[in-house]
Amino acid sequence: MSVTKTLASYVTNAKPADLPEAVKAEASRTFLNWVGCAVGGAQHETLDIAIAALAPFSGPGIASVLGRRERLDPLHAALMNGISSHVFDFDDTHLRTVIHPAGPVASALLAYAEYQPVSGADFINALVLGVEVECRIGNAVYPAHYDVGWHITGTTGVFGAAAAIGKLMALDTRQMSWAFGLAATQPVGLREMFGTMTKSFHPGRAAQNGMTSALLAQRGYTSSEQGIEAKRGWAHVLSVAFNPDEITENLGKSYEIAVNSYKPFACGIVIHPAIDGCIQLRKSGQVDAMQVRSVTLRVHYLVLELTGKKTPQTGLEGKFSVYHAAAIALLKGAAGEREFSDAAVNDPQVIALRGQINAIVDDSMAPDAVHITMILNDGRVIEHDVEHAIGSIARPMGDADLDEKFYGLTDDVLGHERAQNLCRLCRDVGSLPRVDVVAQAARLPA
Amino acid sequence: MSVTKTLASYVTNAKPADLPEAVKAEASRTFLNWVGCAVGGAQHETLDIAIAALAPFSGPGIASVLGRRERLDPLHAALMNGISSHVFDFDDTHLRTVIHPAGPVASALLAYAEYQPVSGADFINALVLGVEVECRIGNAVYPAHYDVGWHITGTTGVFGAAAAIGKLMALDTRQMSWAFGLAATQPVGLREMFGTMTKSFHPGRAAQNGMTSALLAQRGYTSSEQGIEAKRGWAHVLSVAFNPDEITENLGKSYEIAVNSYKPFACGIVIHPAIDGCIQLRKSGQVDAMQVRSVTLRVHYLVLELTGKKTPQTGLEGKFSVYHAAAIALLKGAAGEREFSDAAVNDPQVIALRGQINAIVDDSMAPDAVHITMILNDGRVIEHDVEHAIGSIARPMGDADLDEKFYGLTDDVLGHERAQNLCRLCRDVGSLPRVDVVAQAARLPA
Repeated sequence: MSVTKTLASYVTNAKPADLPEAVKAEASRTFLNWVGCAVGGAQHETLDIAIAALAPFSGPGIASVLGRRERLDPLHAALMNGISSHVFDFDDTHLRTVIHPAGPVASALLAYAEYQPVSGADFINALVLGVEVECRIGNAVYPAHYDVGWHITGTTGVFGAAAAIGKLMALDTRQMSWAFGLAATQPVGLREMFGTMTKSFHPGRAAQNGMTSALLAQRGYTSSEQGIEAKRGWAHVLSVAFNPDEITENLGKSYEIAVNSYKPFACGIVIHPAIDGCIQLRKSGQVDAMQVRSVTLRVHYLVLELTGKKTPQTGLEGKFSVYHAAAIALLKGAAGEREFSDAAVNDPQVIALRGQINAIVDDSMAPDAVHITMILNDGRVIEHDVEHAIGSIARPMGDADLDEKFYGLTDDVLGHERAQNLCRLCRDVGSLPRVDVVAQAARLPA
Repeated sequence: MSVTKTLASYVTNAKPADLPEAVKAEASRTFLNWVGCAVGGAQHETLDIAIAALAPFSGPGIASVLGRRERLDPLHAALMNGISSHVFDFDDTHLRTVIHPAGPVASALLAYAEYQPVSGADFINALVLGVEVECRIGNAVYPAHYDVGWHITGTTGVFGAAAAIGKLMALDTRQMSWAFGLAATQPVGLREMFGTMTKSFHPGRAAQNGMTSALLAQRGYTSSEQGIEAKRGWAHVLSVAFNPDEITENLGKSYEIAVNSYKPFACGIVIHPAIDGCIQLRKSGQVDAMQVRSVTLRVHYLVLELTGKKTPQTGLEGKFSVYHAAAIALLKGAAGEREFSDAAVNDPQVIALRGQINAIVDDSMAPDAVHITMILNDGRVIEHDVEHAIGSIARPMGDADLDEKFYGLTDDVLGHERAQNLCRLCRDVGSLPRVDVVAQAARLPA
């Protein structure tokens, strides 16, 4: 059987009862983290603009925009929730591929759950399968595909959303293959867009395109049944390397959502070791930021490729500056949304300190590690290693960490009482009779 | 100035009064041909399915689906009209790049003209500019981009639609650059989808994505301002060759729409020389199809690459079979939609004749040429050359040919009287006070 059909067949046949408990538990954590990010990002200017531009074209407003008053049709709600969940760069990460798995999949699923009734068990199953599909396709082409210049969250996320919605629709294998063909033909996301509002557009549009693919396939809109692996299919057109075994082997035996990770800091994962190390040094009492003469970070090569901005001008650009991130971590001991505001980036103290910070690529450095060398004004030299940054697979955030992050994102938007109710619903999502109550609890009163 | 900004600046500054008369006339012909194709394709099952799947998510139904009763929001109407205009593979072709220029651009424009009032002069200007943008970007990457496996109509069409709608919105150069960035990040179309309903999805989705890009940019949704030429921008990620001069040189001095071409036959342009040659032989009286022992076609390499299906099973597959096309041309003297029906493809006479037909790639053969060698049952050998197929730049369809094609497509859908009225409106589109009257005249009464 072909790669696309094998994957389609797996998705159509997988049952909620097949899922190991640990996988279901991680799916709930993934969902909680995603809802927190979407609610937290909902007041961002990016959302104001997107809604102002597209709401006039929305169908009946049956689906919630999380953290806001507006309701839109499910396709537009999926777009908006995908945008807001990524706008702070604070969402989950599949570390092997740097895919942000929940954005495309959960955005589509929750919006769809307000269109058709969906039980918690089916929802968790579809979430697991959607993440499985996008991450397996990512595994098959990473890093070549990413190196070409594609934002892998948007390009693989379309498949994830199509799989998840197609599963809720109970598509048959041929229809699911068509949905994958339709997903293959509408990838979203160039890395050139990083640092602009368009980056957040990618997971949202992937959710919307994936749902569209499933809706069309359900009605019999035909497509290739070898959309992934064909000579002119997705993998060969969008990548220069492709290992189909990553897609087809051990289906139903391993789960990519089990190795999902959550960010403690509101920026790209590649800077987290540097932030973690700087916060550790500050907390240890060894270092006063005002006494720092120079800092040298030995980093993984992606750090400079993705976050090498020397002089960011805006909060958003600050997220793409390892120099800003390290400076703010040393000065404030934190790297939440507040530390990536326009004001923080233009703070003279921060600007002065970031000028003292250098970063050097070290080919021996793992992506979740950093080595920091600091020289203080009194001549002292401090060396510090982070082997595994907080939030990595080796040092995951615990449930309490995730709750704290969730409230940090949602309290200001919903108020703490509503945020607590929402947190409980997310934690219990797998046992809910209907999942639409989560969306209702996450929106503001009209 | 960068490539993207140069192009954006040109589009934002170009005025209707700048257009040469011949360019305006060709734009009207392009529009007439597109309306005919969209109306003619509107009853196709592909449209039934797409509308059934997506109409529940449509916003207020202010825009017409040509040739049908349904009205949808402008984004969905653009999608549907783009699908129907391509579903017969009968639309226009920019021969240098095999782009079908009108689909993405006109579909977006006409739907938008039912949302905001648009004069004929502004409409023609926006149509010319949209086609200019998509074809110039195509010129800059063809054939490398197409050879990678992209359906160039969908991948460049997004830019064309964004330019056209952005022009009507009077975006400034920065906004137009953002619209191009948003277009760059959502290309549509893998060639793997050829032969399925998804091929027609490409120009429709390109229209919808381009309009979405302009709507977002208008409100200030930021994007890269170097979306086309940046290291990880569209051209380098989606192509292995890129000549930016094709985009920036002679802007306002040459017009790609002036070299647009229209298909006399309802299938891919690459088979047209073979069809034309077979019809010429039949008309000449030299050949009776029943007396043919064998036919050998010497063809351009793309003919076998795109239309090499030996044993098509459906009418749609027949469009990708040079063997079927030549057989039906010899037997029927025509190659309209009727000759590419399921019945025609499965006609025993056609099947028998197509078994006698061979095609050989000849590297010296131009794309609009063919050499035919026919051996008859009595042993006679007939040789025939087509230097330029009808519909090529060297042998364009005249105005009367285009009218005849238009009525062939629209009479059965609208009735001849309504079709005549529509034809007149299309021919006069440039002088209409409001273009929405064309859309109204092209839809069926509710």
